[in-house]
Amino acid sequence: METTDISAAAEAMTDEQVKRMAMVCWSSDLDRVWPTLILATTGAASGLEVDIFFTFWGLRVLQKNNRRFTGKNWMQKGESLVDRGGTDHLRLGKIHFGGAGTMMIKKLARQYKVASPTELLEMAMDVGVRLHPCQMTMDLYGLSTDDFIDGLQPTLGAASFIDMAAKADITLFI
Amino acid sequence: METTDISAAAEAMTDEQVKRMAMVCWSSDLDRVWPTLILATTGAASGLEVDIFFTFWGLRVLQKNNRRFTGKNWMQKGESLVDRGGTDHLRLGKIHFGGAGTMMIKKLARQYKVASPTELLEMAMDVGVRLHPCQMTMDLYGLSTDDFIDGLQPTLGAASFIDMAAKADITLFI
Amino acid sequence: METTDISAAAEAMTDEQVKRMAMVCWSSDLDRVWPTLILATTGAASGLEVDIFFTFWGLRVLQKNNRRFTGKNWMQKGESLVDRGGTDHLRLGKIHFGGAGTMMIKKLARQYKVASPTELLEMAMDVGVRLHPCQMTMDLYGLSTDDFIDGLQPTLGAASFIDMAAKADITLFI
Repeated sequence: METTDISAAAEAMTDEQVKRMAMVCWSSDLDRVWPTLILATTGAASGLEVDIFFTFWGLRVLQKNNRRFTGKNWMQKGESLVDRGGTDHLRLGKIHFGGAGTMMIKKLARQYKVASPTELLEMAMDVGVRLHPCQMTMDLYGLSTDDFIDGLQPTLGAASFIDMAAKADITLFI
Repeated sequence: METTDISAAAEAMTDEQVKRMAMVCWSSDLDRVWPTLILATTGAASGLEVDIFFTFWGLRVLQKNNRRFTGKNWMQKGESLVDRGGTDHLRLGKIHFGGAGTMMIKKLARQYKVASPTELLEMAMDVGVRLHPCQMTMDLYGLSTDDFIDGLQPTLGAASFIDMAAKADITLFI
Repeated sequence: METTDISAAAEAMTDEQVKRMAMVCWSSDLDRVWPTLILATTGAASGLEVDIFFTFWGLRVLQKNNRRFTGKNWMQKGESLVDRGGTDHLRLGKIHFGGAGTMMIKKLARQYKVASPTELLEMAMDVGVRLHPCQMTMDLYGLSTDDFIDGLQPTLGAASFIDMAAKADITLFI
């Protein structure tokens, strides 16, 4: 082993000091989106590089709040009716109770100064979290980038996400 | 690169031999708590350092079994009514069937000598698994440390969990 | 530190170039099995070593599609009635709508050339993904290897999965 190799190894180690977190946001349930965005903003604020891959139900999190119906064919339009997108419209995956449970939890969160998903998504972009929409899911839903909020990264496929995750110190599927 | 740097690097490598696992226990569903605690106890018994962060619905897992109602205001008390805490009261997230499904799975587990969540939680502490309650969720639920079982670690925030996870070899959100 | 130690360290580094992914397939919901198998096949096709541990509800994914009833006692047989196994019979965890929602998503997937779970499971084995059934869950369900598709790895326990996960660069619980 040459001195240069040793230096390269040392540099690689230093480079590893920047910790990375790669998350899959798979769900649009309020109770899953909340921890995803809290971990993301907290991580980025603590100096980590953070990537979130929004896929399957989770892609709806990136939808504009005022975009009610989406999709190109009747199946996609029908799905958008029962699976409303946008951070203002997320529901609890449990004890939603026709809206009462979700409303109560949101009220408690405000009372205890926990930021809403809409606020957290903006904060996330402010602190440098990279938000990646899944291309395949966009195709399935018939969504275009115009349906999404501004400030996102280019759309990704599974292979690119795996590349990111392989470099990350923390990988979570939420 | 000096010899001392090389030694430091070598030491760092040796130190990395102790593997670590950091898990988020996000749910209080029986079918999620079970694998969380089985992985935790098995991991710790195999020599890993194991940390579990109990957050959102998962915080209820740490509640005393005989503590029926919790919370400080009516919303928190109401939530505790429909979201009973304690390892003896966990329900399946699927095919609960008003209790019949959950009862059947528990009966099968006993028959095949799979430890119950209550037993596993005790075993976890015995083998050195560190159980961390989430401070933010405690505030939301209006829970105090008095509502929890004994032997827990001090309450944590997201930033501290991320620190742990960044050092861990295995990170899982369950 | 001797030259041989440095060489060993260098070799260890080179060996780490082969990235690994270890996943827990915990669910048999169509919307969870799909990303699991897409990530697995994409990862393996990109050169990663991929292991999937099928446990709890997820074990049903490995069941032969034509195996309707399984189990040794009445509880296990009853459970198999309401929790049908095999990749052709997976249901969405959300908006299943008595089958209509699941059928629609499958139709959309075909239209956009997304492989079905059955196709993906075969592709996974073709590209070298290792599929491990959980022994403990097999006991609970009363399943034998004869109930499963061909080409699987030997059954595993939690300790062996943790060993795999500790060596992996990407660990996901899905």
